[in-house]
Amino acid sequence: MNRFLAAACAVCLAGGLHAQPFQPADLETARELRALALESGLAYEITSELTTRIGNRLAGTEDDARAVEWAVDKLESLGFDRVWTEPATFPSWTREHERVAITAPVEQELVALAIGFSPGTREGGVEAEIVMFDDLAALEAAPGEAVADRIVFIKKRMERARDGSGYGPAVAARGQGSMVAAEKGALALVIRSVGTSTNRFAHTGAMRFDAGSRRIPAAAISNPDADQLERLIASGDPVRLKVDIGAQVNEPYTSQNVIAEITGSEHPEEVVALGAHLDSWDVGTGALDDGAGVGIVTAAAKLIDDHAERPRRSIRVILFAAEEIGLWGGRAWAEAHKDEIENYQLAAESDFGAGPVYEISARVSDEAWPVIEAIHAELEMLGIAMGGRSQARGGPDFMPMSIHGLAAADLSQDGTRYFDYHHTENDTLDKIDPAEMAQNVAAYVVLAWLAAQSPVDFGSGPGLIEAD
Amino acid sequence: MNRFLAAACAVCLAGGLHAQPFQPADLETARELRALALESGLAYEITSELTTRIGNRLAGTEDDARAVEWAVDKLESLGFDRVWTEPATFPSWTREHERVAITAPVEQELVALAIGFSPGTREGGVEAEIVMFDDLAALEAAPGEAVADRIVFIKKRMERARDGSGYGPAVAARGQGSMVAAEKGALALVIRSVGTSTNRFAHTGAMRFDAGSRRIPAAAISNPDADQLERLIASGDPVRLKVDIGAQVNEPYTSQNVIAEITGSEHPEEVVALGAHLDSWDVGTGALDDGAGVGIVTAAAKLIDDHAERPRRSIRVILFAAEEIGLWGGRAWAEAHKDEIENYQLAAESDFGAGPVYEISARVSDEAWPVIEAIHAELEMLGIAMGGRSQARGGPDFMPMSIHGLAAADLSQDGTRYFDYHHTENDTLDKIDPAEMAQNVAAYVVLAWLAAQSPVDFGSGPGLIEAD
Repeated sequence: MNRFLAAACAVCLAGGLHAQPFQPADLETARELRALALESGLAYEITSELTTRIGNRLAGTEDDARAVEWAVDKLESLGFDRVWTEPATFPSWTREHERVAITAPVEQELVALAIGFSPGTREGGVEAEIVMFDDLAALEAAPGEAVADRIVFIKKRMERARDGSGYGPAVAARGQGSMVAAEKGALALVIRSVGTSTNRFAHTGAMRFDAGSRRIPAAAISNPDADQLERLIASGDPVRLKVDIGAQVNEPYTSQNVIAEITGSEHPEEVVALGAHLDSWDVGTGALDDGAGVGIVTAAAKLIDDHAERPRRSIRVILFAAEEIGLWGGRAWAEAHKDEIENYQLAAESDFGAGPVYEISARVSDEAWPVIEAIHAELEMLGIAMGGRSQARGGPDFMPMSIHGLAAADLSQDGTRYFDYHHTENDTLDKIDPAEMAQNVAAYVVLAWLAAQSPVDFGSGPGLIEAD
Repeated sequence: MNRFLAAACAVCLAGGLHAQPFQPADLETARELRALALESGLAYEITSELTTRIGNRLAGTEDDARAVEWAVDKLESLGFDRVWTEPATFPSWTREHERVAITAPVEQELVALAIGFSPGTREGGVEAEIVMFDDLAALEAAPGEAVADRIVFIKKRMERARDGSGYGPAVAARGQGSMVAAEKGALALVIRSVGTSTNRFAHTGAMRFDAGSRRIPAAAISNPDADQLERLIASGDPVRLKVDIGAQVNEPYTSQNVIAEITGSEHPEEVVALGAHLDSWDVGTGALDDGAGVGIVTAAAKLIDDHAERPRRSIRVILFAAEEIGLWGGRAWAEAHKDEIENYQLAAESDFGAGPVYEISARVSDEAWPVIEAIHAELEMLGIAMGGRSQARGGPDFMPMSIHGLAAADLSQDGTRYFDYHHTENDTLDKIDPAEMAQNVAAYVVLAWLAAQSPVDFGSGPGLIEAD
């Protein structure tokens, strides 16, 4: 079929399907599941158990191994048809200690966290006069002599936004600041935390870790501490900092993606994939990031598994390993399964806390777009709007497969408060609203069920790359 | 004059004054000062400088000495007529380290702060099974064998209230829990933080420190950590904790109350006293507690000092020492000045953050009550209601003098959010709303000015004790 005919046929199919691609019984089941999800506390219970029994679970640690063991047990006890693990191997990093203090013109301890993959300082730390920059670009533009032998402070603030769009512009300093400052001869990097809270928590997260590139020790200070530092600098006296970090990059470690399946009744080889990541940072208890996602997608699948009617396609819950330190679980999964990408009908990951879903967007074939519209019609009563076409990537852990043309849906969550807690000591269970969480489960259960029943394939494969 | 005649005369005077005790020019000045205060950023600037240049300032430390030096310089540079210090001597306490961790059924670090005057544990800490109580009364009622050789956990929650009334019922565990648990043979005490925040900050504060009574090491854990502990205990497995505290009670230290005066033009010996305390806990930067009070009362006095018209009576700003660890500055001041209590016309302390003032109450002579009512009339446009009679104590640092019959006014602040930050690492400048702070300054400037101009004495002395 040439491209013109294919397009015409897509339009024709789309027109024909627009009225309603789904069987009445499938819609009836979707609505039943949606109602059950809104009443269910299962997602919250799962997240509570993970964050209480395991706590935080940095990839490559004993806590990671305990989390994997917990997840296998949990998914098996929930009665899924199959539960298995698939390996992911990665370099890991261990925080030993960090201390950032003002030493002049006054002595004050600051609330700080080393940035993931920061090297340690020499024993006892480094101490130097500070040089402040507005953002990473300003540091990049600075002459070397302004930076050499100094401690660089980047004061860039993250802006609050429902869609989390303030994160990208601010996180550049965390990702690349250490390398850029190293090139110019700085001794250490300190950044304002990439977060929206005025509470006194520092925000960790990974820096880019390119083997061979020189990096310097780097830490984030809490936003009130960044304000304090700016005020002291504004007062005119030279300000000196001490940065003392102990940290280790470790030998490669192998963790596991943990996968549970509801085996499809008609097309077991065709898979609707719901993702979340099991690992967290080593601070807080990883409740919003991403205990919430683990609870949401597991509960959605469990509701379908408990229903009398079996899905036509298989539904898999994939709890990815080592997302935080470099998408290693997602990379391993893409590498292992990219040759069977056509089997992966539709992928969606929950990894943005537990705020309510406000929009669905999708990247699917033209033929499948009316199916997404019909799914949206069942989400509308949850307050979910129709979002853009071709924009979805399915979430971070599906991105390595997305570049091969994975069909994906994004259930965008309200992230207005997400970056108040993300990657901090304050990411704990109490930050989750059970009712908002249940709305998420309702959205995922409708999406997963109807995707499994769709009369049309979603189009994963090289064709979707061309569609971009 | 017998009591009956005195009372009749008071009623007569009250009736006569009710219309308006103040001269029109005094009211005009009060209104000018009020308008200037609402536009002034001085209180915020002072609090910013104290918390930025000095940071926290635990009584008895080098930071305390730096704060005293700063306060003397600041008050002198503001141009008050007289600035001086008066000594206060007290036992002090130093935090060295604290660590509270769950050791079974899982290992997790908790966010904790040792309670002030906690003894240290033995080297390496103590580790034992936990026994949980609803509140101090439940611990008091428990048989010794339920407590001996255990670590006691008191889970009492503080309730949020505008007037801070949830503090008292919860703080009993902090004040007396260590002694009560010690009597029953417990190894250590851990309490839920006495605060209303769900952010992961522990709340410090002093325990009762009776020489001779046996105490055990005690710490508060953050509210999310207390929730976590409760969930683990509810899961049924025995829960064990490790508590490791290093702390020292030090030799007596002498700090200073720092006092500034606007000398009265007609009755310099008669004093309107505005108080705040200069010390803070050793966490956060003591912005709300009580950097805000220092800023508010100093700015109010400075506005009066800058005005062309001199007050009839003297107005003194008293920045008390060592409030947090036992009202030592207030006790020293009462001891030094109780014999001249009649000179202290009216006292009011700002020590409840920077939330807006919503009510004025007072303990003054019957003759002076109409003056308070007339002052209230000038506060009403600030949203301040008339509160109760005979209930005011003027604030914590005036309490030692209050028992001798000090006339006092309370400008009650909205404390709904105060205990989200109080005594935590999170008590920093950004928690202050400059506009709300300016409203406080406006209230204090009206109160101080009109009290200094009052045609009637406020009645400090033994007579006010009888009036209770």
